[in-house]
Amino acid sequence: MERYDSVVIGSGPAGLEAAINLKIRKKTFLLFGQKHLSTKIIRAPKIDNYLGLPSISGQDLQALFLEHLAKMDIALQSEQVSIVYPMGDYFSIASNRETYEAATVILATGAASAAAFPGEERLLGRGVGYCATCDAPLYKGKRVAVVGYSDEAVYEANYVSELADKVFYIPMKKRGADLNESIEEIPDKVLEIKGDASVSELVLAGGPLQVDGVFILRETIAPASLVPGIEVQDGFIRVDQHMATNLPGLFAAGDCTGMPHQYMRAAGQGQTAALSAVAYLDRR
Amino acid sequence: MERYDSVVIGSGPAGLEAAINLKIRKKTFLLFGQKHLSTKIIRAPKIDNYLGLPSISGQDLQALFLEHLAKMDIALQSEQVSIVYPMGDYFSIASNRETYEAATVILATGAASAAAFPGEERLLGRGVGYCATCDAPLYKGKRVAVVGYSDEAVYEANYVSELADKVFYIPMKKRGADLNESIEEIPDKVLEIKGDASVSELVLAGGPLQVDGVFILRETIAPASLVPGIEVQDGFIRVDQHMATNLPGLFAAGDCTGMPHQYMRAAGQGQTAALSAVAYLDRR
Repeated sequence: MERYDSVVIGSGPAGLEAAINLKIRKKTFLLFGQKHLSTKIIRAPKIDNYLGLPSISGQDLQALFLEHLAKMDIALQSEQVSIVYPMGDYFSIASNRETYEAATVILATGAASAAAFPGEERLLGRGVGYCATCDAPLYKGKRVAVVGYSDEAVYEANYVSELADKVFYIPMKKRGADLNESIEEIPDKVLEIKGDASVSELVLAGGPLQVDGVFILRETIAPASLVPGIEVQDGFIRVDQHMATNLPGLFAAGDCTGMPHQYMRAAGQGQTAALSAVAYLDRR
Repeated sequence: MERYDSVVIGSGPAGLEAAINLKIRKKTFLLFGQKHLSTKIIRAPKIDNYLGLPSISGQDLQALFLEHLAKMDIALQSEQVSIVYPMGDYFSIASNRETYEAATVILATGAASAAAFPGEERLLGRGVGYCATCDAPLYKGKRVAVVGYSDEAVYEANYVSELADKVFYIPMKKRGADLNESIEEIPDKVLEIKGDASVSELVLAGGPLQVDGVFILRETIAPASLVPGIEVQDGFIRVDQHMATNLPGLFAAGDCTGMPHQYMRAAGQGQTAALSAVAYLDRR
């Protein structure tokens, strides 16, 4: 398996700026993110504090970012990374489609935009999961709900529908175009996940669904769920001045490292993280 | 005397981004810097890693920065700050022309681009100084050399020439237009500052000049010379994650806080420093 110099997770300013600097330093890497880059940015009506681009709209900034990636020939991998395992001198990165290896990882996953649903944390691993393709075999002949925020949610729902008896799709942003016919789409509000030993119900505003599993496909996964052993404080990844985490070879940048949540701060940290990863690679 | 909410020292990306954020947060402040903003930037042939502005020239980036300042109605104070005194709950900031007061200070002074001249540190305060207007009275009837890097160097030389017997001007970047007629301009390389108890000679490549004082007007003053009591490590200002220094109300951002010396990192830190200063002001 090809071992990349680095994997960057996240396509906000921190992840993009990290990727750009890795590219300039001629490192091999993959950039995982959303096709639209960042929901937060495209929804911003006007940004005044992005130095050099006064009064720019979020959509115009997104267009400039996409153009920057294109000009530097940087591809965006729109798979959803579900877990990063530190393996000693490299990392194993599992997405919902493949497994990859990299000598360094840069987390630029942003801040969790939504709180966990009631019951979600308690039932995590007992019917609640963040990667349907990974766990699909467990749901053969069973009933599953997919709560979809991210680009990959429809792919995930379709995948699990091949094995499960029944799949419900709850679209959190846009309706699931391209969903398999067998999937029932229910545009509704998620209230709670219920169950004793394991998941038994997904409670929506319109009433409960009897299900055995609930997959939640967010744009952002909490760092502690993403990387076993990572040091987190008040929900944010602990980093030093060089954006190094407590795990050698693992760096973090942007909103996932703390406040204030701002574009320039994020981009600056992404740059620092990338150059620290380069220094780490060059030392080895 | 008006007491500003903040004073920002430096007009590279860190200082500019700090000023923009202070403005958005409706704080009163002064921004001290060079009219051309940053020598490093305008000399950069091509910058690839400024997210959103691929392959931009330093001069184009400078133009965008100036436009951003103009759009937000942020004025640039081109005086040279010579010292910042922590006064307990505020700071006294002395430039070569005036004294100001501010509740917070953001240092974005960049990295010293040139090493000190041989003899400079040893003779600092004993004939070597960084503010001619401040010390001019000491040189009444004496011989003085002004080594000019910054915008304000010519003003400084002219000021001291009104009192001194003889002033030499050594232009380090561009020739001193507008120099008083009595000043002798010597475009040459500075080799060393000599003297026992105090300065006696400025040694140029073309030979020594007998002088009683040498003023060096750089764009950047070493942090430890600028702010008494500031904590410095390996020449860089020690800051925490919020860009706070060891002195309450004093923040730092950009190249003066360490490596890597990069525009996005600097701008991101400037933003963080400004928002930390705002939080500090709001807490009081």
